[in-house]
Amino acid sequence: MKIVIIGAVAAGPKAACRLRRLLPDAQITLIDQDDLISYGGCGIPYYVSGDVQDDKELRSTSFHMVRDEYFFKEAKGLEVKTLTRAIKIDRKEKRVITEHVNTGEKGELSYDKLVIATGSRPNILPIKGVDLDGVFTISSLHKAIAIKDKISKGEVSKAVVIGGGAIGLEMAESLTDLWGLDTTVIEFMPQILPNIVPAYMARMLEIHMKDNGVKIFTGEGASEIVGEGGRVNKVLTPKRELEADLVIMAAGVRPRGELARDAGLQCSPYGAICVNQRMQTSDPDIYAAGDCVETLNLVTGKRAFAPLGSLANRQGRVAADNIAGIPSRFLGVVGSFVMKAFDVAIGSTGITADIARKEGFNAVEAVASQADRAHFFPGQAIMFMNLVVDKDTKRVLGLQGFGKMGDGVLARINSLCGLIGKGLYADEVGTLELAYAPPFSNAMDILNTAGNVADNLVSDRLHMVDIDEFDRWMNDETPHNNWIALDLRHPKEASPWVEKYPSKWLAMPYDEVRRRYKELPQDKTFILICNAGTRSYEIERLLASKGFKELYVLPGGLNVIKRLQPIWYIE
Amino acid sequence: MKIVIIGAVAAGPKAACRLRRLLPDAQITLIDQDDLISYGGCGIPYYVSGDVQDDKELRSTSFHMVRDEYFFKEAKGLEVKTLTRAIKIDRKEKRVITEHVNTGEKGELSYDKLVIATGSRPNILPIKGVDLDGVFTISSLHKAIAIKDKISKGEVSKAVVIGGGAIGLEMAESLTDLWGLDTTVIEFMPQILPNIVPAYMARMLEIHMKDNGVKIFTGEGASEIVGEGGRVNKVLTPKRELEADLVIMAAGVRPRGELARDAGLQCSPYGAICVNQRMQTSDPDIYAAGDCVETLNLVTGKRAFAPLGSLANRQGRVAADNIAGIPSRFLGVVGSFVMKAFDVAIGSTGITADIARKEGFNAVEAVASQADRAHFFPGQAIMFMNLVVDKDTKRVLGLQGFGKMGDGVLARINSLCGLIGKGLYADEVGTLELAYAPPFSNAMDILNTAGNVADNLVSDRLHMVDIDEFDRWMNDETPHNNWIALDLRHPKEASPWVEKYPSKWLAMPYDEVRRRYKELPQDKTFILICNAGTRSYEIERLLASKGFKELYVLPGGLNVIKRLQPIWYIE
Repeated sequence: MKIVIIGAVAAGPKAACRLRRLLPDAQITLIDQDDLISYGGCGIPYYVSGDVQDDKELRSTSFHMVRDEYFFKEAKGLEVKTLTRAIKIDRKEKRVITEHVNTGEKGELSYDKLVIATGSRPNILPIKGVDLDGVFTISSLHKAIAIKDKISKGEVSKAVVIGGGAIGLEMAESLTDLWGLDTTVIEFMPQILPNIVPAYMARMLEIHMKDNGVKIFTGEGASEIVGEGGRVNKVLTPKRELEADLVIMAAGVRPRGELARDAGLQCSPYGAICVNQRMQTSDPDIYAAGDCVETLNLVTGKRAFAPLGSLANRQGRVAADNIAGIPSRFLGVVGSFVMKAFDVAIGSTGITADIARKEGFNAVEAVASQADRAHFFPGQAIMFMNLVVDKDTKRVLGLQGFGKMGDGVLARINSLCGLIGKGLYADEVGTLELAYAPPFSNAMDILNTAGNVADNLVSDRLHMVDIDEFDRWMNDETPHNNWIALDLRHPKEASPWVEKYPSKWLAMPYDEVRRRYKELPQDKTFILICNAGTRSYEIERLLASKGFKELYVLPGGLNVIKRLQPIWYIE
Repeated sequence: MKIVIIGAVAAGPKAACRLRRLLPDAQITLIDQDDLISYGGCGIPYYVSGDVQDDKELRSTSFHMVRDEYFFKEAKGLEVKTLTRAIKIDRKEKRVITEHVNTGEKGELSYDKLVIATGSRPNILPIKGVDLDGVFTISSLHKAIAIKDKISKGEVSKAVVIGGGAIGLEMAESLTDLWGLDTTVIEFMPQILPNIVPAYMARMLEIHMKDNGVKIFTGEGASEIVGEGGRVNKVLTPKRELEADLVIMAAGVRPRGELARDAGLQCSPYGAICVNQRMQTSDPDIYAAGDCVETLNLVTGKRAFAPLGSLANRQGRVAADNIAGIPSRFLGVVGSFVMKAFDVAIGSTGITADIARKEGFNAVEAVASQADRAHFFPGQAIMFMNLVVDKDTKRVLGLQGFGKMGDGVLARINSLCGLIGKGLYADEVGTLELAYAPPFSNAMDILNTAGNVADNLVSDRLHMVDIDEFDRWMNDETPHNNWIALDLRHPKEASPWVEKYPSKWLAMPYDEVRRRYKELPQDKTFILICNAGTRSYEIERLLASKGFKELYVLPGGLNVIKRLQPIWYIE
């Protein structure tokens, strides 16, 4: 059997190697237009930062062999043609027409089965100056090498990153942290990590990154890149001018599906290749995998574009299995993400409440703030989990988390990655079995707490105030004359607030409310305040039973507010 | 409604507090025979070690209020009677007869609904000397306080821990690490953490603990505890005498179900209270939760005893829900566990292969050894995952993991806790979606690798040699004249082995086998050797396609062997 694989970064090599193990006698040829192949693209920010010293490390196996043509030929028994671009798929004759990138020499490869793994390309903004020297996308290892080279030569002092998604933020960290560059991130949307985490969590991250020296402007896109003598020296936004001798455009990627589309294969309107669960395109002899394909979002039930190296590897293996006659399936994704930023970790699985509402769900957000390990264990830190649930069906739609760097956030996100896709309900999260010991978690883990909060929310036992609305009220931007904050913390904690905000703030210690609730005004809307939200919830239940009607808990308590640093916050 | 709750450590207070929130007007009374209540029992080793300074921290909320009778009364609106033992449940009259522990004064509490949360008691070995001064179980906070008191007064220099389960090992760490005591653990079974992790992983842990100063003897029970003047000074085993001025008996716990049994409630043969998924006993007005109940093992389908604080909390909440009319369920457990020991973490979910075989499964173990984050990321360390799969159905039965301290092991264990209970199959683990970024994991996480290894194992594409059998062969204990180890590593790594074991060891670098396989003897059984097992698997596939018949991969490669420190290992 002759198998041709177009693209040799992630899905392609994975498919090729699996095929070699399954079909020892097949003739397998991998082609790629680049000369650097089979590399860990997600490691690029850590290569640029210097955490990873040599680009070879990104191209090496765990046993330190560089994955070059020699390696693939000798060790894997695969033919690899680099600098070879596939320019046409001739489905009728079952052959791929190729062209050498440097010489222009044409060639052809006939196939019995074909795998398209052409990946994605970065979006180039439709603005002036994108071609200037010093403006980069992170589209290949060559670009990464060029960026690092430029920095290490001392040619860069000010960098602007366009795009506040994961890659943009990781690049910003690497430029600031290890190279000490004056780095600014601009993000067109009103928050960083848009559509990945809720606004308040993005704000926590933003503050942490700013504390570590990164400048961030949200709600502000690049309107022009300005150069001098062909070299970049400025990025303009509608609001400001940013000096820059390095610009990194990290404005997302789009699928490289042209080859497939031109061959008449079914593609999505935005150019991703349509595949079934077996990674098979509309031509049964042609498979596709990785960033160039469209997959299914298991939460929304809609087709989705999910360009991630982790998925590319899984899909590549499934494509190989099916070519070899094993009926493996890739069912889809819920969308899972984790990122390091200096000393914090942020992660997500499934969808955010904003997206959920756009998709027609009646989404609520359960906010939990709790120690990441036993609250009595040394080194514990407050972690935040945001569980998104459909109020009508109680189905869990997503989870987002923020906490101290380490694998604690990952441990919670990963607990739900597989379950959300299979169908998970709020009450199941409350009783979810998780491994427990005090150095790792709490008897009721923050994830269980989030599940219980969600269950109380969807059952109308718990009501939460909108964090932004509360902020506007504290800022006197919206009146809500009837509102009053009821601070349930220890008098030592509450008193400064009562003093500073006498018209807004009332205090009654949590353990006295049961005895003293009659002292409270009956006609007010209470915003119940504590550090984590748990005491507030308990007092909501108590006061509700005493006839109080308008009761709202501050989600996650002041633990959340503290990290958002509003001007009205008292340390 | 009158609700009485017997037991106020974990399940009891959880049920009481949830009930208070759901039924504001109910009269809720908690009784406990102790005067210290509502504490984090799992934190005891960390209290004894000094990581947690004050026992009050184990009894405090996250907002630093001590959970004593005042707290429950004032803050929670619950009546608590401490030092009050329930001596009889009169189901006909729906009342509990009580007795004051100190005064002997009798009392009674009538109930509409009753919750039994009487917990467990430690097993006392049927040997001489268990009553000596200086011999402790970890049965209550009082015992922990007494132990710490004794140590801090300088009365202890040598400690023996009887029992190599989680509590015994945690106690051994705390005695050695912070107090510098000469500490010995003895475990009757042939390995520590019996029935929780496979023998080879237990051995890795044992070596790590020994490296940190803990003495460990397995396959060796305590036969007698010897004292002088009423105080312990020795522990005898069939093989040795161990000096000791402190003995901690951590030989498991059993349910405290007598009260329920005497009231005619259905109990298991070993005394655990039988409950349905609503935590209801055979008397519909009586619920039970926590260490005193029997639950369902969702892997084996059999009834199981799973005394864990984490489950007690979940069960307490479910009991409360049902009393308040909310049809919550606690479906059962798969058995999840995580433990810190000095600089490593070890964890487990589901069942081990040994247990699985006893339960009738055709269990195989997929061993994966891989970097816990991107292999090019600084600070990465090798982690081990052992995925247990039923070969006949491909169902995942369990996962055990070992790695560097931190939350990395937890992140993998927790990824499967919920899924195993719902029904998970080997191929699903290979494609399992997990959050990925290089500082946290690999594009194909070790869990995916373990899933793929399992899938290859159950599909007979991969065959593994038994680690113990390989060890015996290397030790010349079993001949296997036909065996030969084929070392696929770099010649620099393989040469010392070939030199030292010329009759057993052959080397051919992985990337040369495809070209040179004809040089290999055709009549040998090859044990394929590399560092992680991945190259070995690839060469198994290659050689199988060339007509070689007897091919076995060393599970997890030399990464595993290295940590088992056999005498034949070459550094």
